[in-house]
Amino acid sequence: MINITLPDGSLKQFNKGATPMDVANSISHGLARNVISAKFKDTIVETATPLTEDGTLTLFTWNDQEGKTAFWHSTSHIVAQALEELYPGIKLTIGPAIENGFYYDVELPEGSISDKDFQKIEQKAIEIARGKHEFKMRSLSKSEALDFYKEQGNEYKVELIENLEDGTITFCDHDSFTDLCRGGHIPNTGIVKAIKILSVAGAYWRGDENNTQLTRVYGISFPKQKELTEYLALLEEAKKRDHRKLGKELELFTFSQKVGQGLPLWLPKGAALRERLEQFLKKAQKKAGYEMVMTPHIGQKELYVTSGHYAKYGEDSFQPIKTPKDDEEFLLKPMNCPHHCEIYKTKPFSYKDLPKRYAEFGTVYRYEQSGELHGLTRVRGFTQDDAHIFCMPEQLDQEFKDVIDLSLYVLKSLGFEDFTAQVSVRDLNNPDKYIGSVENWEKAEQAIINAADEKGLDYVIEKGEAAFYGPKLDFMVKDALGRKWQLGTIQVDYNLPERFELTYKGSDNELHRPVMIHRAPFGSMERFIALLLEHTGGNFPLWLTPEQAIILPVSEKHEKYAEKVLKSLENNEIRALLDSRNETIGKKIREAEMNKIPFMLIVGETDEKANTISVRKHGGEDLGAISIAAFTDLVNTEINSTLKSF
Amino acid sequence: MINITLPDGSLKQFNKGATPMDVANSISHGLARNVISAKFKDTIVETATPLTEDGTLTLFTWNDQEGKTAFWHSTSHIVAQALEELYPGIKLTIGPAIENGFYYDVELPEGSISDKDFQKIEQKAIEIARGKHEFKMRSLSKSEALDFYKEQGNEYKVELIENLEDGTITFCDHDSFTDLCRGGHIPNTGIVKAIKILSVAGAYWRGDENNTQLTRVYGISFPKQKELTEYLALLEEAKKRDHRKLGKELELFTFSQKVGQGLPLWLPKGAALRERLEQFLKKAQKKAGYEMVMTPHIGQKELYVTSGHYAKYGEDSFQPIKTPKDDEEFLLKPMNCPHHCEIYKTKPFSYKDLPKRYAEFGTVYRYEQSGELHGLTRVRGFTQDDAHIFCMPEQLDQEFKDVIDLSLYVLKSLGFEDFTAQVSVRDLNNPDKYIGSVENWEKAEQAIINAADEKGLDYVIEKGEAAFYGPKLDFMVKDALGRKWQLGTIQVDYNLPERFELTYKGSDNELHRPVMIHRAPFGSMERFIALLLEHTGGNFPLWLTPEQAIILPVSEKHEKYAEKVLKSLENNEIRALLDSRNETIGKKIREAEMNKIPFMLIVGETDEKANTISVRKHGGEDLGAISIAAFTDLVNTEINSTLKSF
Repeated sequence: MINITLPDGSLKQFNKGATPMDVANSISHGLARNVISAKFKDTIVETATPLTEDGTLTLFTWNDQEGKTAFWHSTSHIVAQALEELYPGIKLTIGPAIENGFYYDVELPEGSISDKDFQKIEQKAIEIARGKHEFKMRSLSKSEALDFYKEQGNEYKVELIENLEDGTITFCDHDSFTDLCRGGHIPNTGIVKAIKILSVAGAYWRGDENNTQLTRVYGISFPKQKELTEYLALLEEAKKRDHRKLGKELELFTFSQKVGQGLPLWLPKGAALRERLEQFLKKAQKKAGYEMVMTPHIGQKELYVTSGHYAKYGEDSFQPIKTPKDDEEFLLKPMNCPHHCEIYKTKPFSYKDLPKRYAEFGTVYRYEQSGELHGLTRVRGFTQDDAHIFCMPEQLDQEFKDVIDLSLYVLKSLGFEDFTAQVSVRDLNNPDKYIGSVENWEKAEQAIINAADEKGLDYVIEKGEAAFYGPKLDFMVKDALGRKWQLGTIQVDYNLPERFELTYKGSDNELHRPVMIHRAPFGSMERFIALLLEHTGGNFPLWLTPEQAIILPVSEKHEKYAEKVLKSLENNEIRALLDSRNETIGKKIREAEMNKIPFMLIVGETDEKANTISVRKHGGEDLGAISIAAFTDLVNTEINSTLKSF
Repeated sequence: MINITLPDGSLKQFNKGATPMDVANSISHGLARNVISAKFKDTIVETATPLTEDGTLTLFTWNDQEGKTAFWHSTSHIVAQALEELYPGIKLTIGPAIENGFYYDVELPEGSISDKDFQKIEQKAIEIARGKHEFKMRSLSKSEALDFYKEQGNEYKVELIENLEDGTITFCDHDSFTDLCRGGHIPNTGIVKAIKILSVAGAYWRGDENNTQLTRVYGISFPKQKELTEYLALLEEAKKRDHRKLGKELELFTFSQKVGQGLPLWLPKGAALRERLEQFLKKAQKKAGYEMVMTPHIGQKELYVTSGHYAKYGEDSFQPIKTPKDDEEFLLKPMNCPHHCEIYKTKPFSYKDLPKRYAEFGTVYRYEQSGELHGLTRVRGFTQDDAHIFCMPEQLDQEFKDVIDLSLYVLKSLGFEDFTAQVSVRDLNNPDKYIGSVENWEKAEQAIINAADEKGLDYVIEKGEAAFYGPKLDFMVKDALGRKWQLGTIQVDYNLPERFELTYKGSDNELHRPVMIHRAPFGSMERFIALLLEHTGGNFPLWLTPEQAIILPVSEKHEKYAEKVLKSLENNEIRALLDSRNETIGKKIREAEMNKIPFMLIVGETDEKANTISVRKHGGEDLGAISIAAFTDLVNTEINSTLKSF
C-alpha cells in the first residue's frame, strides 16, 4: 500500500501501482472525467503512470494552467503526426506547449506551408484525435534512441538525444506516431475536440541564426468547439484593440527608424493625453503629501556602482557615455532611485520631517534586444510615474495603506474595476538571501499584508518571491478581454538606504536608517497607455480622451453657428473640434466614429434657430437636440462618474 | 593734408600728422576732455598717434566699451608699476583688460599677495596715477626688445617676443615704467581717479598646467571715485543675488558630486516653480496654436549625422552610447529639432495644414569642460522651452510677429521690462556661406525686421552674424542690476528642412520645402531661473513664488485658528505655509523674511476674535488686520497686475 496526500492535506491509501486516474476515480467519477494531467511529488506524470511510493499528488483539469499545458503539448504530438502524414520526409525537431497553444518546429522536405494549408492540417489532426488513441510512455536506452532517429535520418532529434544524460530516454506513442518526449500528456487524443493552426513563421534551429532555418507551425486546441470559436473571436477583438494599430490610427505616438527602435515619439494628441494623465496623478499625489522633484537622465557611473544598478544593468544595457577628456563616465539612468537618494542627502532630516515622499515622472532608459521590443509595452526608453517614500520602519504600515489607496484611486479613475494583488515575501528557509534585519522584514511583510487586508484586496502571497532588498506588492489588472496585466508596484527597500548611508535623527537623538518605498501606480506611462488603449479599444474615459466632442455642421451655411458652438464649448472647458470640411454629414460621422470621438454635435437649420446641438454618441445613440448648457452638464456628469477627487 | 572721415560720415581735412586728440579738439573742447581712446582704419591707436593718411576715425570716451578697454588696459600698466616698486624682483608677464577691469599675471620673487596687501597696492598705484604721466609708445627692433628683457631676466617676456613676427616691437612708457605693449592707452595716468584691487588667484603661464604657476592680480578702475563706490555696491548686491547662493538658501536646486557636475537636481520647491513656469508657457502656447510633443533624450547617431549635429557636437560632447551587441550607437540629444523633424515626417501635410507648431520642454545634454560649469547658467543638461514651427516661406512674416508677441508676453509676465533685440543677417559679401535661395533669405530677413519694427522692438542689425542656415533675432534683457543677458531666441532655418527632406503639398499640387523656425522664449529653464533669481534677488513674481504666504500664530493657543486660515487659503488657491513651531514670533518673522515669503499672516487673540489676519509684507510693510477674503483679493490683484492672460 502507498500513502497519497492530496492538495487539501487529506491522506488516502492505495495499492502500489495505482495511477493518478485511479485516485481521481476514488474521489468522484466527475473528477475522473475531467482530469487530464497530474503532478506527483513535484514532477509532471501521466494520468496512467503507476504510483509506487508515498507522495503528494495534484490532479489537473482544463481549468488549470498545468492542464492546459498537457492538453496543448499532447495536441502538438497529434499535429506532428498529421504533418508527417501530409508531408512525407518531414523532420520533426521540438514542439512545446506555450502560453496560448503550442508550436512545432519542422524541416520540410521541400516547399513551404502557407495559410492555405492550415485547414488540411487541422482536418487531418482532428481525424487522428477522434481515434481516441492513448498516449503511452516508453523507455529506450540512449543508443537505441539514437539508432531510431539515425535510421530516420533526423539529425535534430539525434542532437537532442546526444545532449541528454546517459541512461533511459523516454518516448511517447499514440496511434502509429512516436516522439522523443519527457511526458505530461492527457489520457487520450479524443479529448481534443477542436484544433486550429494559427500561423507559420521561420525559426532557427536552437534559436541560432547560423543554423538551418526551420518552419514553426503555431496552433491551439480546445476540449470544446465553442471554446475555440470564442478564442478566435477574442483574438480578432484583440487585433482590433492592438495598441500599435490604435496608436497609429488615433495619432497618439509613432516610431522612427532614424530616432531608433523602441524610442516612442509622442504626437500632439498622445502628448496631450499623457499630460492629462500626469496632471491627474500630480493632483492626487499633492493631496497625498508627495513633493515633485526633477533629476537628470544621466548620472556618473559611480552613482550606479554605489546603488548596485551598474552590477545589475551595466553589461546588458546601454554602455557608459564617455567624455572628450575621458576622465568621466556617465550612464543613462535605468532607475530614478539613486537620484532621489542624493536629493534626500541634501539636508539632514529628523523623525519629525518623515516621511519624505519624492515623486518624479522620470524617463529611464534600458537596452532591450530589438527582437524583444513591442509597441509601447516593451521599449528602450519609458517614463515611470515614480516616487520614493523615505520613512521610519514604524511608518511603513500607514504609508503602505496610503499607497494602496492612491493606486486603487488611479485604477478606478481609469475604468479598471477588476484587479488582484500579489504579495511577494521572503523564503524563510533562505534567510541569508535577504538584506535588513529579521525584525524589519517581519514588520514590512506584516505591514503589506495588513494593508492588503484592510483595503479588501484580493491577493495571493508568493513565498520566496520577494527581492533581496525587501517585500513587495504588485497589482494585476484584468482588461476588457479578460487578459491579465501587471501594472503598479509597491516595493519596500532596505538596501538603498544602506548603500547611500541615508539617515534621520530619531527622537532618541541618535541617527537611524530610514526605509524606502518605491512605488508607481501606473508602472510606466508607455505601458499603461498601451494597456488602456487595449482595454478601452481607444474609447478612453471621457476626462482623458483627446477630443470630447466634434461639431459637424450639416452644410457650409451653418459654419458660423458651428464656430459659435465651438467657442462656447471651449469656454466651458470641453475639448472640441469643428469639422468644417466640405464633406457629406455621413462621411463626417463615419470618420468621427473611427476617431472614437465620444460626442458628435450635429448642427443644422433647426439647431441654429433653436440655439441647440443635436447630440449623437459614439456608437450611434441619439440624444436629440439639447442646449450647450445641457450638453456641458451631460459631459461633466459623465466625467464625475469616473473621475472622483482623491 | 589728409582726409579724416568721422563715424557720422562727415569728412574733415587736417594737416598730415594731426592726432586723434587734434581731431577731437577741432570738434569741441568738451569732446577733447572726454576722449580717451581712438580707432583709425579699424586699428586701435593712441590719442597722440600722428595720422599720416586718409581714413575713418572713431573717438571713444568712457561711455564706450572701447574707451573702458583702453582705460583698464592703461590701469594695468599703472598697477604693474606699483607692483614692481612694492615687490622688487617681480617678473611681469601679461596684463590685459577684461570685461570688467583688468588683471596682471606676475611671478613674485618670494611670498604671496593677500587681500591684506590690496590697499598698499591701490595706494601706490593711485599715487603713480596722480603724476599725470603720459603713455608713450616706442618701437625697438626685435633683438633690442629681447636684450631688454634678457637683461632683466624675464623669461616670460622673452618668450612672448620670440613668438612675435620679426620686425618692430612696440613698448609703452609712462613715468619710469616700460612694458612690452601693442598700444591702445588713455592720454595720461591722471585720468584714472580710482583703482581697486579685487582679488588674487593662481594662473598657469599660458594657461598650461605644466607651466609655472603665476599670481593673477585682478583689479578695476574708474574716472571718478563715485563710480568705483557704485561698482563695489553693485558687486556686493550681485553677490547677494548670486543664484547659486539663493538657490541653496531657498532650497530650489542642488548639485551632487555623485550624480555629476553640471547636472542640477531640482528640489521640491524648485521643481514646483519650474512646473508653474512650464504650465504658464504651455497655456500661452496653446492659445498661440502650438501643439506639445514628447521625444526621447537619445537618438541614433545616424539621426545626428543627418541633422549635422554630429559634425558640430560629436567630438567635443558626450560620446556615443554603445549597446551590448555593438550594432547600434546612440547619442544624448544636444538639440530637439531632429526629433521634431521626424515627427513632421509622420504624415504628409498640405499648405492647408501649415503652420505646424511643435513644442516640447526638451531636456538636452551637451558636454562642457568642468572648469566652464557655473551654477545653472552653464550646465551639462538643461531643458529648452523649445518649439519648431514648420511653415511656408510666405507665412514667416506673421509667424515671426506672433513669436515676438509670445516672447514679450513671457518676459513681461516675469517682470522684465527692459529689453533690446539683436537681428543677425547675412554678410552680403559672402553669399556662398549661406544655404537657401537669395529670395528666401531676403524674405526672411525682411520678415524679421518688419516684425521687430511693428512690435516696436529696440533692436540693432548685425551684418554677417546670421548662422549659415538662416537669420535670427535674439532678445537681450537687462536685469535689476543693469546687467545684460541673452535670453530667448528666434531663428529661421532653411537647412534642416533640406537635410530631412521635409515637404508639403502646395496649392499648386507640387511638393515644396517648408521653412523652420526654432524658438525658445525662456531659452533654457535652468538659465532663465538663474537669471530670474538674480534679477529678483529671490523675490519672485507673486504668481510664481514657492510660498505666497506664511501663517505665524503668535502662540500655541491660536494654532487651531491658524489651521483654519490655512485651509481657507488653500481653498482659495493661495500657496501658504503654517509655521507652528514653538518659536518667538520675532524669530518666525526673521526666517520668513530670509525665505522671501511675500506675505506674513500673523494671527493672535484679536485676529481670532475678529476672524481676520494681520498682514505684513516681505520687507516690513504692515497692511493691518483684514479678512481672508480681502487678503485673497489683494493677492489676486497683485498677480493680475503682472500676469495678464495671453
